[in-house]
Amino acid sequence: MTYVNKKKPLIFITNDDGIYAKGLNELVKGIRDLGEIIVIAPDGYRSGMSGAITSLNPIRLELLKKEENLSIYSCSGTPVDCVKLGINAILSRKPDLLIAGINHGSNSALCVIYSGTIGATLEGCVIGIPSIGVSLTDHSPNADFRHAVKYGKLMAERILSEGLPSGICLNLNIPGITDVKGLKICTQTKGIWKEEIKKLKDPYDRVIYWLSGEFSSEEPENSCCDEWALSNGYAALVPLQIDMTAYRFYESLKKKWELYT
Amino acid sequence: MTYVNKKKPLIFITNDDGIYAKGLNELVKGIRDLGEIIVIAPDGYRSGMSGAITSLNPIRLELLKKEENLSIYSCSGTPVDCVKLGINAILSRKPDLLIAGINHGSNSALCVIYSGTIGATLEGCVIGIPSIGVSLTDHSPNADFRHAVKYGKLMAERILSEGLPSGICLNLNIPGITDVKGLKICTQTKGIWKEEIKKLKDPYDRVIYWLSGEFSSEEPENSCCDEWALSNGYAALVPLQIDMTAYRFYESLKKKWELYT
Repeated sequence: MTYVNKKKPLIFITNDDGIYAKGLNELVKGIRDLGEIIVIAPDGYRSGMSGAITSLNPIRLELLKKEENLSIYSCSGTPVDCVKLGINAILSRKPDLLIAGINHGSNSALCVIYSGTIGATLEGCVIGIPSIGVSLTDHSPNADFRHAVKYGKLMAERILSEGLPSGICLNLNIPGITDVKGLKICTQTKGIWKEEIKKLKDPYDRVIYWLSGEFSSEEPENSCCDEWALSNGYAALVPLQIDMTAYRFYESLKKKWELYT
Repeated sequence: MTYVNKKKPLIFITNDDGIYAKGLNELVKGIRDLGEIIVIAPDGYRSGMSGAITSLNPIRLELLKKEENLSIYSCSGTPVDCVKLGINAILSRKPDLLIAGINHGSNSALCVIYSGTIGATLEGCVIGIPSIGVSLTDHSPNADFRHAVKYGKLMAERILSEGLPSGICLNLNIPGITDVKGLKICTQTKGIWKEEIKKLKDPYDRVIYWLSGEFSSEEPENSCCDEWALSNGYAALVPLQIDMTAYRFYESLKKKWELYT
């Protein structure tokens, strides 16, 4: 038995919607047969936390459930804290796969730089774990995650059998529709946020601001970017890299901007 | 007069160490003659906030100072919130330059995915403002920022005269030494964090965890990465891009992983 257990893949799951979110729990149910599952997820909502880490305050962990091949912890920190703590303080071996999600709401295009789901995915990649963020383009708490679980599981199996190159992770978005046409490999959609800042008053008549806004694509028509795939009924898979160096600009900058004193 | 004022470059300054940090205030003093300055910075410490945004809560702004060509606001949000709010709710024209910093402490290598300074820099880039993050490799509150201000100002002048390509911003780190040898154009150092999670007890005897750890480079010797430059006495300038697509893996993934139902 011990031998068999050791051979099972170890799968780390986290999210940014919190430990009680439907998306996370549907994912756990859907992939439970793939291996030993460890869930460490925030104790509440941490959307928009990007790669934030907690350095000034302590972090707390609570074991919520432990049964055969499934442990579930709630964590007071950010999604990235969950990953760092899990790997360095809880687990005795490195997971074979990290899945962040399934997120309630899209993490396509520029969302990668704000999303806590993608923050956790990049952190898995930093640590050297093949990692994927999975998101459904439906924000509602009771969204239907069946298609998202199906595609998430397909990708999980693929990653477990083929691995991922060092420094690269995956960002999977699934459209919130019933007739998903398949999965497209895409690039991160270029575009801008059209911000709308609401200026309101609090009950004491003091001015407050509230962020909102929406993404506006600047891609040419039919470019194979993730927004195109999603709006045409496909799941979109984008390979992301943690090296943010702009290599195409690097050489020209090197020729012109170096300084010696 | 109005005409002259309109021709002055508008420079947006923010940080993640908070509005009262020495690094920010030394920067403002040092570049004040370059244009009209608007400072919107967090009301306290927001290090490690990455690209986090505040969506569940209101954000507050307070005007602390207004004099000719200098306005200073304190903001209750994250570094990215400061940028979004400034551009969309306060300013009537787009800044010609955004500078985040000068940060107390290095933001080289993998720090780009955790740093609030870089979060704000990327946000400027998203909005289409030529943007640079500036950091000194000295955490102390009373660090000597003279060299960092000198290099920050040189780069600010350069960006104001030459601009930056769309989707690309700059990450400048200056070593905390007195004999800086010049400035090297670098790549983001590849490596890993060697985490050290301290397991402690709070005063009520409950277990708490605290993140720490240090970066460990995995670059070959003499590679022109930012960690190499800094440890050899140079300021390090890395061009960063907001498109995180891993293009070198994209094509092979496209051949093998697409699915149709």
